[in-house]
Amino acid sequence: MQFSSSLLENAVNEFARLPGIGKKTALRLVLHLLKQDENNVAYFSDVIAKMRSEIKFCQRCFNVADGDICSICSNSLRKQDIICVVENIRDVIAIESTQQYSGTYHVLGGIISPLDGVGPDQLNIETLISRVQKENTHEIIFALNPNIQGDTTIYYIQKKLQPYAIRVTTIARGIAFGGELEYADEMTLGRSLQNRLPVESYVSNR
Amino acid sequence: MQFSSSLLENAVNEFARLPGIGKKTALRLVLHLLKQDENNVAYFSDVIAKMRSEIKFCQRCFNVADGDICSICSNSLRKQDIICVVENIRDVIAIESTQQYSGTYHVLGGIISPLDGVGPDQLNIETLISRVQKENTHEIIFALNPNIQGDTTIYYIQKKLQPYAIRVTTIARGIAFGGELEYADEMTLGRSLQNRLPVESYVSNR
Repeated sequence: MQFSSSLLENAVNEFARLPGIGKKTALRLVLHLLKQDENNVAYFSDVIAKMRSEIKFCQRCFNVADGDICSICSNSLRKQDIICVVENIRDVIAIESTQQYSGTYHVLGGIISPLDGVGPDQLNIETLISRVQKENTHEIIFALNPNIQGDTTIYYIQKKLQPYAIRVTTIARGIAFGGELEYADEMTLGRSLQNRLPVESYVSNR
Repeated sequence: MQFSSSLLENAVNEFARLPGIGKKTALRLVLHLLKQDENNVAYFSDVIAKMRSEIKFCQRCFNVADGDICSICSNSLRKQDIICVVENIRDVIAIESTQQYSGTYHVLGGIISPLDGVGPDQLNIETLISRVQKENTHEIIFALNPNIQGDTTIYYIQKKLQPYAIRVTTIARGIAFGGELEYADEMTLGRSLQNRLPVESYVSNR
């Protein structure tokens, strides 16, 4: 692409660095911003710089936070003795959006994956164990993606948790709502048969 | 979506205002920026604010420019007596990317469209006529989108140009490279038959 303005070119190049945004989309976004009021664009730019420089990670659960402790850990209405273990912040947002969970979180910051060179030491696992030691934790819920890395991580952490008398669970695997049995893979269908539920509890949950 | 940080939430909301970017994509972009070095994000933010506040429009052709006159108008290697009339800046970039054009441009800033309430007075048409009066213009090339609004705009401007003895042309309509005859609409196929070219000129242009 040929630009007649280096200001425009720089802005397009910066947008095109973002994941999933190519040069043409970047140009569309920049030309959109060019049409907006100058104050609005200054605000957009400020909010992004401020987000990166001021955002913190919760010292207890490693979720994003405005201060030292995130709004979930500091909320006394939430069950502080239940910890949901997730891979990243996106998973926290996904679970929060269901409005079905009232405990706390622990963000691992990744998942055990020897092929990618990620071992237990690079993840927030030790901090989880020391949380369990210090706090009177009642239950740990694993909400990790259902793949080999997720299962390895669950297995590793579960071994470390054995000395402590706490309930350890994982979110249910099964056929998704709107899914069709005939297109489900054998693994999922098999697991959902093994972990079948009494119809009363299914009906009362709807 | 539920966020545990208002800094994160504001940044996601700002990204989600951009055209074609929903909440989920905005979150992905913001989490990507969160992982980047703080200086890189500050640079990203600066470049955008600077682009909006410092960019100018060329006083001669209304293309984007870093100064009062754009780099195309101030380039003595370009044929200053040929003007290519386009709807917007995006079209300038598209034509420049072909590297087939060595004249100047005139950006109308839109197209005559009574249904959208856009009349000739809102466009840079008078400035085009006064350019033709002042400069020793040799040719005007219309590169507008092939639709009713484009044709109306060409007709309107061409009438205004009649007093001046200049060549007025429009870019060729026809079957696009890689297109197939059987899927072309009647209008395009009909026009491309009417405007057929001697094979010699076609072959020499390849």
